[in-house]
Formats: sequence, structure tokens, C-alpha cells
Amino acid sequence: MISLKRRRGGHEARVEISALSGTFEPEWLRPVLDGRWEPIRQEARERMRELRPPAGESGDTEQERARVMDGLRRLAEQGYPRLGFAKEYGGEGDIGGSVVSFEMLGFGDLSLLVKAGVQWGLFGGAVQALGTERHHSRHIRAIMELELPGCFAMTETGHGSDVASLQTTATYDPGAEEFIIHTPVDKARKDYIGNAARDGRMAVVFAQLITDTESGESHGVHALMVPIRDERGRALPGVRIEDCGRKGGLNGVDNGRLSFDHVRVPREALLNRFGDVEPDGTYTSPIENPSRRFFTMLGTLIRGRISVAGGSGSAAKTALALAVRYGEARRQFERPGTGTEVKVLDYLSQQRRLLPALATTYALHFAQEELVAALHEIQTATLQPDGAGEGAGDDDGKAEEWRQRELESRAAGLKAIATWHATQTIQDCREACGGAGYLAENRLVQLKADTDVFTTFEGDNTVLLQLVAKGLLTRFQHDVEDLGTIGLARFVAEQFAEALIERTAARSTIARLLTARGEPDEDDLLDRAWQLRAFEDREKHVLEGLARRLRRAAADDADPFEVFNDAQDHVLRAGRAHVDRIVLEAFVAALDRCDGPAAPLLAKVCDLYVLSTIEADRAWFLEHGRLSPATAKALLETVNELCKQLRPHARTLVDGFAIPGHLLEVPITQGPPATD
Amino acid sequence: MISLKRRRGGHEARVEISALSGTFEPEWLRPVLDGRWEPIRQEARERMRELRPPAGESGDTEQERARVMDGLRRLAEQGYPRLGFAKEYGGEGDIGGSVVSFEMLGFGDLSLLVKAGVQWGLFGGAVQALGTERHHSRHIRAIMELELPGCFAMTETGHGSDVASLQTTATYDPGAEEFIIHTPVDKARKDYIGNAARDGRMAVVFAQLITDTESGESHGVHALMVPIRDERGRALPGVRIEDCGRKGGLNGVDNGRLSFDHVRVPREALLNRFGDVEPDGTYTSPIENPSRRFFTMLGTLIRGRISVAGGSGSAAKTALALAVRYGEARRQFERPGTGTEVKVLDYLSQQRRLLPALATTYALHFAQEELVAALHEIQTATLQPDGAGEGAGDDDGKAEEWRQRELESRAAGLKAIATWHATQTIQDCREACGGAGYLAENRLVQLKADTDVFTTFEGDNTVLLQLVAKGLLTRFQHDVEDLGTIGLARFVAEQFAEALIERTAARSTIARLLTARGEPDEDDLLDRAWQLRAFEDREKHVLEGLARRLRRAAADDADPFEVFNDAQDHVLRAGRAHVDRIVLEAFVAALDRCDGPAAPLLAKVCDLYVLSTIEADRAWFLEHGRLSPATAKALLETVNELCKQLRPHARTLVDGFAIPGHLLEVPITQGPPATD
Repeated sequence: MISLKRRRGGHEARVEISALSGTFEPEWLRPVLDGRWEPIRQEARERMRELRPPAGESGDTEQERARVMDGLRRLAEQGYPRLGFAKEYGGEGDIGGSVVSFEMLGFGDLSLLVKAGVQWGLFGGAVQALGTERHHSRHIRAIMELELPGCFAMTETGHGSDVASLQTTATYDPGAEEFIIHTPVDKARKDYIGNAARDGRMAVVFAQLITDTESGESHGVHALMVPIRDERGRALPGVRIEDCGRKGGLNGVDNGRLSFDHVRVPREALLNRFGDVEPDGTYTSPIENPSRRFFTMLGTLIRGRISVAGGSGSAAKTALALAVRYGEARRQFERPGTGTEVKVLDYLSQQRRLLPALATTYALHFAQEELVAALHEIQTATLQPDGAGEGAGDDDGKAEEWRQRELESRAAGLKAIATWHATQTIQDCREACGGAGYLAENRLVQLKADTDVFTTFEGDNTVLLQLVAKGLLTRFQHDVEDLGTIGLARFVAEQFAEALIERTAARSTIARLLTARGEPDEDDLLDRAWQLRAFEDREKHVLEGLARRLRRAAADDADPFEVFNDAQDHVLRAGRAHVDRIVLEAFVAALDRCDGPAAPLLAKVCDLYVLSTIEADRAWFLEHGRLSPATAKALLETVNELCKQLRPHARTLVDGFAIPGHLLEVPITQGPPATD
Repeated sequence: MISLKRRRGGHEARVEISALSGTFEPEWLRPVLDGRWEPIRQEARERMRELRPPAGESGDTEQERARVMDGLRRLAEQGYPRLGFAKEYGGEGDIGGSVVSFEMLGFGDLSLLVKAGVQWGLFGGAVQALGTERHHSRHIRAIMELELPGCFAMTETGHGSDVASLQTTATYDPGAEEFIIHTPVDKARKDYIGNAARDGRMAVVFAQLITDTESGESHGVHALMVPIRDERGRALPGVRIEDCGRKGGLNGVDNGRLSFDHVRVPREALLNRFGDVEPDGTYTSPIENPSRRFFTMLGTLIRGRISVAGGSGSAAKTALALAVRYGEARRQFERPGTGTEVKVLDYLSQQRRLLPALATTYALHFAQEELVAALHEIQTATLQPDGAGEGAGDDDGKAEEWRQRELESRAAGLKAIATWHATQTIQDCREACGGAGYLAENRLVQLKADTDVFTTFEGDNTVLLQLVAKGLLTRFQHDVEDLGTIGLARFVAEQFAEALIERTAARSTIARLLTARGEPDEDDLLDRAWQLRAFEDREKHVLEGLARRLRRAAADDADPFEVFNDAQDHVLRAGRAHVDRIVLEAFVAALDRCDGPAAPLLAKVCDLYVLSTIEADRAWFLEHGRLSPATAKALLETVNELCKQLRPHARTLVDGFAIPGHLLEVPITQGPPATD
């Protein structure tokens, strides 16, 4: 038991930290981490044995693209894509499994991960989620087997985050019973589209659906299947394909631009699950409200966002595994009087760089696992047979919509936090490995370059966190209604999905922890109940403050755009506080499931996650009287002490991820040369 | 005048922010920024007109290297390297000018910048600083004219930060009057050496100098000129050259590895300014103390570190110029009820990302200019004619050593802070430009990739900041002497340079500001005297706390390594607080020099620099009772308000850098296509 004391003014803070004794085996951690989809993870590891460890990109774009396309073919042959598709068409219908399997690809070549995501997640996923039987029976098998390589053509040069404002048009011509796909202005060209520059033959094109050519009024954004290349790979008439060229990374993925000059496709090309056009041009939809229809359509595509969060987690794990191995092998500066040089991981500065990041990676892993399970439950119910699960009773429908909205909010929030975490962690790992970390042969720079865009694609992180917060605001719905006069509510609704999010049904453990004792001691930093309350309290306070601020502005009759814009930092803080709470609850739930010998180690990792998270935001806790200055200082020392306690187990913790060993066999992890 | 109020408990914080009225012209800013070396900056801009805007690396390493070598030849033809070398050998002897001229290259191709730095800064600089007339007269002209491309072979695979422990040996053979250069173990190979893989013909090799082969005892690390390739580019006998291969960036620089198998060079190959070997093997040196000799030698090489800080500044400026232009051109989401989409730079979240970074870039610019001036004064006095400026009276010598140590400390600190700032800023700029920011054609990813290693080379930032702090600790020298019993002082002295650093002689403005009024109001965030005191007070308090902590540990008879290691986060904080203060003082001095129409704008930029810096560390100010919670909250809003005030001038501020326009002509800054 270590006791830290800090005194300031009349106040003393004392933290009692129990020692972490004994040794731990990675094999004890693996089952906890592998969780529900353990067999799928194991299978993925087996499959990856064949992959050579990805060195840095060759630099020759065409060669990179060919290599990655070959990898994609191998995945198709191995049946990798089957998990994600319905059984009727040769799939296995394991939605959660498909996301986990995708996540595992992130230990290897990130270009392959993204290309697989484009082909089977985005393109195939859109055909499955937005299409109906006529599309499924005709295309799903060809998509799985890579006979039909395709694109997901949503983003345009002019509009990315603001999908509702896309400018490409799909105008119905009842005479020919065809849609005319057209790019009316340059900035309406589809941009950054994976699979477009080289391999794609078909594109799911998102366009404003117009049936009344007189008014030109749109039924909103819909998706259509548009052939873009013939069998020999030549662009089809009216389709203009450009190459986005070199990117910061992911150069094995052929991103391109698509423009359409009055390209005609048959009426049946419309993915018509949520909106259809009769031969005579009559528009029909099972969802009357156009805004609700739009968000329902987008909502079915949530799997992509969740997959990106998972993939970024694998990249962060890989970077940490490399940096920790290096930290054990690399020595620098003699320890005075010993004649021995110090392992760099023995320096506090290195521990501070890597271990809180490692703890957060564990926390995000458990949150991701929970998110995938929620996706699995919801989409297994609603997506399996065509249209089944829909049209349930009104109450059921409401509950379902509620769950779906919550899923979307969590996916958005976790994607933002997880991808930012990966970017920062990989950067820190690179720096922790010094000059060697900068060499392509050691993988870190490629990991950084490849994952960098994860913070941007599948939703820009800043926009996503705002979406989360604005969803939470609807908890204060009557407040928002008060604001009606200045159009604030309308503004929220227009700019973002009107997500209705409730707090998680408190899991039994958390409930037990929170009710087990009275108000906890301010100083009891290592009490799980105190930790849970600290996160929950911050979320609640930030959110309530935001609602109050908006209400005040409304009373002042301020300009709604200015009001929201001035509060944007507050909004982002609210989103982040919410996600932190969700993540901690997932970690606590995982600890509860874990009754094996790994439990004491994981509990320390959780402590480090919590306290380093609070440390990073401790100004807020101080400003709001949640931490005394003395306790805040004790917190810093507690984080140091936890780093010191976990340092001997760092290798065990990264080995727990069970990343296939050959993917980590790079010069940097091989220790000093034998002649040393 | 805008008034912000925050109330918490009984305390109210009020901040009065004056409005920033009128328009400002970039031309008003340029002379303030260009400063003392304005003609050199202008000349550099002219020279850059010939450069094509650097797109992303082609990916073909050989092609990149050839292109950059061609660029280097053009620079040589244009006389670029002359500034940095003494007049006797055809140079211009403008040391400060040479650093500024190097810095300006950072607006363009960073591979060219680094290759120029290797050839003329590191290699040529070492020959000039460590050699004597026999080396100068023979080589300097050839180095300038690129007839003799060379390497700076210091870092080894096994030792980078710990230069004193390098393992390559230079053993004197009196019979042959030659040195035998040898790589005794694999990890003693020279690593990451620029110019080694392809172009270098000579290397300045740092090695343990041994004259007594019986004992094998070293006189410490010395530098020798060792030929590595013949005229036709083939490795010389006994020299093994490997290629480091692809890197995270800078692939136009040919980094390689050098190993030596008993390679013989004549006695005169030793760069003998600080240590020489007589024909009979007698070692002599003008500096008796080996540790002092070592640090004096390293100290003369300080120009490289200062140049890196400057180069990183240019890269950050370029990234900001690109992101601000994009932020003005790019629109997303309609402003409700207007039919017009909002410029993304009008969102607070974008302003928060870019404008404090821009303010800090200004602050670092002024600090860099001051550092370069200090370097110029010191090296112009000591480096010009061979050995002149040395051997002055004892008192003069002490004062000189003092100034030199202070220069080294500032160079170390500013290099660390400036390169971390560049890395973070370029990352933020990339994200602020979304998917377009990820395309190589828009330069940002290449800027990020190229400058990433700046945080590592020319001194790892974490090690450098510790060096700064440990230097400051010697202010508490009698305390350190108290610690003698546990060897703490020895540990500091052994592990780091024993830099003796005093606070700057307070410039008259700062002195005037600080004495103009009594103790300032806590809440007077925008009072320059309050700001200066806040930075100074934090530095002093952190440093004194650190000294107390070490003294306490000494009293407890603790293990010195553990004591220092446990305090490493405290040490880094002290280094950072010190650099922040130096930077602010430089900004204040620049404001004082600026009496033109740009003054009100620059004053606002300085406010934003100060308050966003305090904001980032406001937990410390709260923990130590320097800010009340109410004032801390008012601070956040003041930063928001300053962002809002500066937003209309963002373009002016980046235009003030006067980056040659064609280097910013990339698709992302060209605004929406004409047909929009």
C-alpha cells in the first residue's frame, strides 16, 4: 500500500494505492479482450498468417494498388466477406462478426482494410441496406466474390459533412422508364471515392431524386446503382473518371472522382427500400416525413462508422505493441554507478507517453465491443430478411427507433474519440521510438499516414461530436421548445439528425457500485464509485450548463446561428464528456465479466484510464469545485504511481491483444544486434 | 468594448476586451516579421520563384533523391551557402543570415531544406567549427560549391541522445601517423546519416579518440574527416554503406548507415580545434577538462538546432496559410434562413483550431529571430578568424561561456517547443481541411510527413527540455551542493550539460511594464504586465518546487536515479514554463519595436498567444491559486472572443508571412470551381 499525501492550505489529500503484486500472463487477458466474437478473432489471426508484414508503401502507386487488389481477391477467396451478408445470398449473416473481422484487418495493411471496407462495407452494405430483393438476388453474390467491384459515391467536392445538400441529380424520365444521372456543376462531382480510380465497375451514387422535371423539386437524397466501367475497365459513355492521385497514406486504395453527363440507368437501379418511383413517375415511400426518411436511410449505413472506430483501435494497438517492445529493447544513458544503460521504458516520460494511451486503448476496446454487440442486435432484427422487423406495432416501432438513434449517437461519438485517440497514440509511439520510428521498415510512420484520414472520413470528428451533443440536448426537450421563437430547435433539427438519446440503462454492476455507499469522499480517487460519479457528474453538468446557456440566449432574442456557434466549444465538450462516460461504463462492465486472474491487472488499467482522463481535463474539475487543488495534485502523482505499477506489465498488456507475431517482427523490436 | 462577466460563489470575474477596429494590410506586418534580416528574406523569396510548388513525393525514391540533389546544385550555383561561411574562403560570414536563409527554404520542399542543412549546416558547419585552417583552406570552398558532398556521422544505431557514449573508435597509429576508424560492434554503425546512401563522398565521423592502445582509454568523442566514396561514387575499401530505405517523409534525402572496418585516415583528418594528436601520439587540447571540452565542441554545433526550429516555423506558417485560405473558400451547411452556406472559418471550432496556433506561430517567430540574433553575435565574435575570440581574459572568458550556455539552453528549449508546435499545427491544419487536406496535391500531408522527425533529430525534444530544466536548476546551485551526498549533482552533471543559465537581462520595455503599476488585479487578463508576471511566476514556482522536491528526496537518502526519474514530468514542466516565458518576452519586445499601423493587430495576436497558452495549462494556475475558478472560466470566453475578433484578419495574418504565392497555389486554396 502506497500512500500519497498532498497538502495545500488547510486541506490535505491522501490517496492510498494498493500494490500490484505477482505476474500476469497475456493468455489471461486474451479471452477478456476477445470477448463474444473470440472464434472470429482467432480465425482472423489464422488468416493473417499468410500476410507478409506490411512494410512502408513502395511509393509506386500502381504497384501498391495492384498489391492491395490482389489482397482483396485473396480475402474474397477465403470467404472473408460472407460474415456481413444475409444467408439467403450465400452470406453468414453475422453482422457483429463482420465488424470484428474487419477490425482485425487493422493489425496488418491499412490499405487492404480500407479497400475491403469500401467494397463490402460501404458498397455492398449500401446495396444490402438500401436495396430490395431485386438488387440482392442479382448483385450480393457478385459483390462478395469480387466479380462486381464497386464504389460508394456519396461525398462530393462541394459537400461532404452536409450530405443533404448533395447536388448530383437523378431525374426520372417516365417515357424511357429511366433515371438520368447528372453532375450539374463541377463541385457536384463525387470525390475521394474509393475503388473509383482503377477497379470499380459499379457505383452506388447518392443523388437528389427528381420526378417532377417542371418544378425540379427533389424527394431528397436517394441511392442508385450506376455502372461506371465496362468489363475491360474502360469508363462508360457519359462517365468521367479522374484519379485523386497520391494521398497522405492508403495509397493502395484507388480514390477517384466521378462526374456524370446525363447517364441513363433503368428505373430498377434505384435502391428502393426507403423510396421508390412507379413506372409512371409516382414517388412512394414507407416513411412519409422526408427528413425522417433521409436520416433513416443514413442510419442503416452506420456499420461503416463503427468499423472505422474498430480499425483505428487495431492500428493504435499495433503502434503500442511496437513502441512497448522498443522501450524494452532500447537502452540510453547509463544508470549512474551501475555500468548499465537504462531501458527507455523505465523513464517516467516514456511511461507517461505510452501507458495512459495503452489504458485508454483498453477502455475503447471494451466500448467498441459493446457498440458492436448493440449494432448486431439491432441490425440482426431489422436487416435480415427483406423488410422484416419493420412495420411492427407503433410502440415497438418507437422503441426500435429509440434504440437506433442511441446506436447512431454512440457510433458517432466513439468513432470521433477512437480515431483521434489512434492518431495521437500512433504519433506518440512514433516519437517514443526516435529516429528508428521514422523509418518505414518499422511500420509506425505508415500506420500514422494511413489512419490519419480516419478522423475525417465516415463523418468529420468535429461534426460527429456536435451531433452527439445536440442529440443529448433533446433530453431537455421542453427547454428546446421554449426556444421555438428564435428558431433554435429548427436549427438543430436542420443541421443535425434530431437524435433522441437516453442514458444507458445502468448495468447492474454500475448500479450496485453507485448505491453501495453514500456520497463518496472527494479524495477517494481510486474508488470505482467515485470515478463513475465523476464522469457522470461532469457530463450532466456540462450538458445542463449548455442548455441553460442556450435558453438564456433565446431569452435575449439572439441570432440562433451566432448562439450555437458561440457555444461550439461547449457543445464539443459535452459530446466528449458523454463519450468518456459511455467508455468508462463499458470498461467497468468488462471488469465485472472478468473473474479470472487478470482481474487485478485490468482494474489498475481502468484506474489509469480514469485518472489520466480526469487529469487531462482537470481544469474543468477544478473550475467547478469537483477537485480541490490538493486533490488535483495528488491525482498527478497517482497517475505517475499507476504508470510505475503498470510498467512491468506493459509487455503483457500489449501481448494480450494477440497481434499475430510476424506483423510485429520489424527491426525496431528485434533488440540490440547480437554482437552487442 | 466587450465586457465578459463570470460569477462563481462570491467571486465575480470581469474582463473588458477592447474592439479591434479598422482594416490591416499584410504589408504592414511584413517588415515587423522580416526584422533584421529583411534583405536576406527578400532575396530568398526571389530565389524561390524558380522553384515549382512542391507536390507530394512521387513515391519513386531514386527520382526524389535525384530531384533534390539537383535542387541542391542550383542552390550552390546561386551562392546560397556562402552566407554561412567565413569570408577568407569565399563566404560572406553572415551567420544569422545563413540561418534565416535556411529557414526560408522551409516554405518549399522540406527534403531540399534538410539536404541543404546536412551539406552546409551539419557537414560544412562541423568542418568550419571543429576544424582549423588546414581543413578550412582545403575543403570549405569545395563544400560550398558542392564539389565535396558530405555527411555528419554522429548518431549510431545504439546511441543517439547519449552522444558521449558513442562506440565508434578512432585509434592513433604513431608508426603510420594515421587514425584507424573502426566500428567495433553492430550497434556502433552510424545511422540515419543524411547524404550517406547516395551522394556523400566525405563524412565527419564522431568517434572515441584513443591514443593509448594498451589501455584503450578514450580522450572522449572527437570528429574526423573520413572519405567514404571515390569520385565515381563507389564505397571506399573498409567502408560499408547501407541505405535506410523509405522514411515517413523526406524521401528526397538519402539517409544511410556507415560502418568502418579499420579504415585508415591521415593524422590531419582530425578536426583539431579542440583536441589534437602530435605525430608521436601525444594528445593536446586547449580545454583541459574532458567534459567541458566535449560540451564546448557540441556547443559550437548549435546552429543546426536553431536552424531546425526555424525550418519548422516555416512549415507551420505554410500549413496555416493553406488552411486559412481553405477556411475562407470552403463553405458547408446553410446559415438558416439566408440561403447561403457558412464559410468554415466562421465556425468557432475552426477558429479555435487555427487561430491560437497562428498566434503561437507569431510568438515563436519573434523568439526565433531573437535567438538567431544571439547566435549571430556570439558566433561572429568567436568563430570568424581561426581561434580568434578565444583566449580572452579570464573574466571575459567566463562571461562568454555564460552567454554560450544560455544560447545553448534557449536553442534546446525553442527547438523542442517549436517543432512540437509545428507537428501539432500541421496536423490540425490537415484535419481542418478535411478529405481535401489528405490529398498530396494540397501539400499538407507532405508537410506533416516531412517535419515529423524534427521533434526527434538535432536532439530529441524530451531530452532537450530536460536539459533546459536541469540547466535552470543550477541557479539553485547551493541547494544542489547540499545534495552532494547522494550524488544528485553528479547525476545531473553526467547525464546532461551543466548549463548555467540566468534569466534574461530584462529588456527595458518589460522592466517598464512590470514596474508601471503595483500588484495587478487577478482578473486583468489583458494587462500585459499581468501576463508577463503570470508566465514569470509560473516558471519560478515550478522551478523552486522542483528544487525543493529534489532537496527533500536527498534528505531521505533516496536513490538518485529514482528521484530524478520520479520527477521527470515536473522537470519537463519546468523546461516548458521557461521557454514560454522567453517566447512571451520576445513577443513583447517585438510589440515594442513596432510603432506602425500593425501594432493594434499584433497586440491582439499577443493576447491570444498568452491566453491560449495559459488556457492549455490553466489547471496549474488553478491548482496553485493563481486563477480563481471564475477567472479561469472568463479566460475561456476571452479566448473565444479574441478568436472572433481576429477571424476577419486571419488572411491578413498569414499573408504577413509573405510566403511566395506560387507555393500556395494548390487546388485547396483555389476556391470553388468557376461554374459554381
